[in-house]
Amino acid sequence: MTHTIEGVHCAAATPVTAEGTPDLRLFAEHCRLLLAEGCHGIALLGTTGEANSFGIRERMALLEAAVEGGTPAAALLPGTSTPAVADTVELSRHAVTAGAKGVVLLPPYYYKGVGDEGLFRFYAQVIEGVGDDRLRVVLYHIPQVSQIPISHELIDRLMAAFPGIVCGIKDSFGQIEHLQALCERHPGLGVLAGADPLMLPLLRMGGAGCITATSNLRAEALRVVWDGWNDPAKAAEVAAAQGRIDAWRRLTNRHVQLPTVKAMLAKRRGDPGWLHHKPPLVALSEAERQDVWAEMDKLGG
Amino acid sequence: MTHTIEGVHCAAATPVTAEGTPDLRLFAEHCRLLLAEGCHGIALLGTTGEANSFGIRERMALLEAAVEGGTPAAALLPGTSTPAVADTVELSRHAVTAGAKGVVLLPPYYYKGVGDEGLFRFYAQVIEGVGDDRLRVVLYHIPQVSQIPISHELIDRLMAAFPGIVCGIKDSFGQIEHLQALCERHPGLGVLAGADPLMLPLLRMGGAGCITATSNLRAEALRVVWDGWNDPAKAAEVAAAQGRIDAWRRLTNRHVQLPTVKAMLAKRRGDPGWLHHKPPLVALSEAERQDVWAEMDKLGG
Repeated sequence: MTHTIEGVHCAAATPVTAEGTPDLRLFAEHCRLLLAEGCHGIALLGTTGEANSFGIRERMALLEAAVEGGTPAAALLPGTSTPAVADTVELSRHAVTAGAKGVVLLPPYYYKGVGDEGLFRFYAQVIEGVGDDRLRVVLYHIPQVSQIPISHELIDRLMAAFPGIVCGIKDSFGQIEHLQALCERHPGLGVLAGADPLMLPLLRMGGAGCITATSNLRAEALRVVWDGWNDPAKAAEVAAAQGRIDAWRRLTNRHVQLPTVKAMLAKRRGDPGWLHHKPPLVALSEAERQDVWAEMDKLGG
Repeated sequence: MTHTIEGVHCAAATPVTAEGTPDLRLFAEHCRLLLAEGCHGIALLGTTGEANSFGIRERMALLEAAVEGGTPAAALLPGTSTPAVADTVELSRHAVTAGAKGVVLLPPYYYKGVGDEGLFRFYAQVIEGVGDDRLRVVLYHIPQVSQIPISHELIDRLMAAFPGIVCGIKDSFGQIEHLQALCERHPGLGVLAGADPLMLPLLRMGGAGCITATSNLRAEALRVVWDGWNDPAKAAEVAAAQGRIDAWRRLTNRHVQLPTVKAMLAKRRGDPGWLHHKPPLVALSEAERQDVWAEMDKLGG
């Protein structure tokens, strides 16, 4: 193992009941199935998982439901950040205590245009607040949503201040050049691609794997790429798997992405409970859903 | 009284101890003094109050400290939103139960580019979740920070669905044209200016008052404007007060605004406890603070 946190991780979607509460039973089942389908780990409660649309207690209940439902805690990599240090400490400590392999931490995303000093203090106060040597932190770089980029200088400073604890970054910026810069400038950092087409090139650059939305639907193909990327004998198999991943990812972007992923899960898992969202996200229209389901049939289910 | 929620409201800053917790004693004192200085109400825990940088329990403790410290709950107008319905319901219900005159609600601000349907559902689920006829909601329009504008169509829909409950809007967009459009298009809505120089023109357009940062320092001048804006005999007094407000507001913008307001409060209240921030905000440098304090002396304290 090269990196502390590596492999194929699913940015798991979160099912919601018709009453608007997290569907704990369906979520626990989804987590079990994702591991069976090939995921090394489950990055629950990220952007795809609508983490920030669930309350603090709902987020803890989802993690507990996954563990109680039979998913090893050591396979879980939950998003535990909020814009506030206190709640982020509470969620992160809960995850560490439960045995999670690490936590994924957004920068505080309410104020815009803040400097690295304030971002460093946020992460430092969270890490010191958790106060547990078992904590492993994956930084979460998704500036197109958070509006708060994570600079190379901030990464350097955090890795120096918290060696071994700040061990990875999920980069959802979507540019291969930035993934390359992260690998080159921070050799000890496990870089996880946030976009499915980028895991393969990232692995060739020394990256650590991925946390992606399409793995909700095509985990087995991502696992084929992971297992075979460096084996010339498996080149054709890997290329075919990457083709499946890319085709399914294109379909997730046919309409608004996150509701499309959930509509696809409703068909894949055979449970209409996947069609609900927490606001501000809303489900696809009936026509959009039917369109996506027809396209899934064309791709082969 | 023309509007359900009207008058001069202070976007109260929140003091923080050296250990990073809310300074409840200093905050309670600040609230009492703000009312004595002329504020009709205290809009605690807004953007100036670093609401989103405090945890759920810290936010409830601050409201309780203000009430226990002698500020009538009916003068309090706390910000109670988070990006999640569940936590927003909890904070809002707590405020209503405590007797607050209303709550100020940001739209959910994590996802960007979301539609009005999702924003409507967020507000509707919060209002229905609180389930208390005493609830009064002031929408919070600050798109330069939240990145989520509140459209006229959304306001119309919310006022129609929750008449009497959705009763105001704090507009911190900073454009007189938008304040005018709000007054003209939504006659039953109490429009509160988020910028001190705009309260006077807003009152002339039928607006409801203000929620501003400078009132942390010059509440008495804003109150003079409020009390005299429509009295020709007080025109000179109002103009002089507005001049004081504008001069002090310019000083709050001499460096980064929120830390500057706190630095000015440290001098005004004679308590260095005002110099601390929650990340991602950080205090002014020592040189900046000295510069601001020297400018305060020039303005007359």
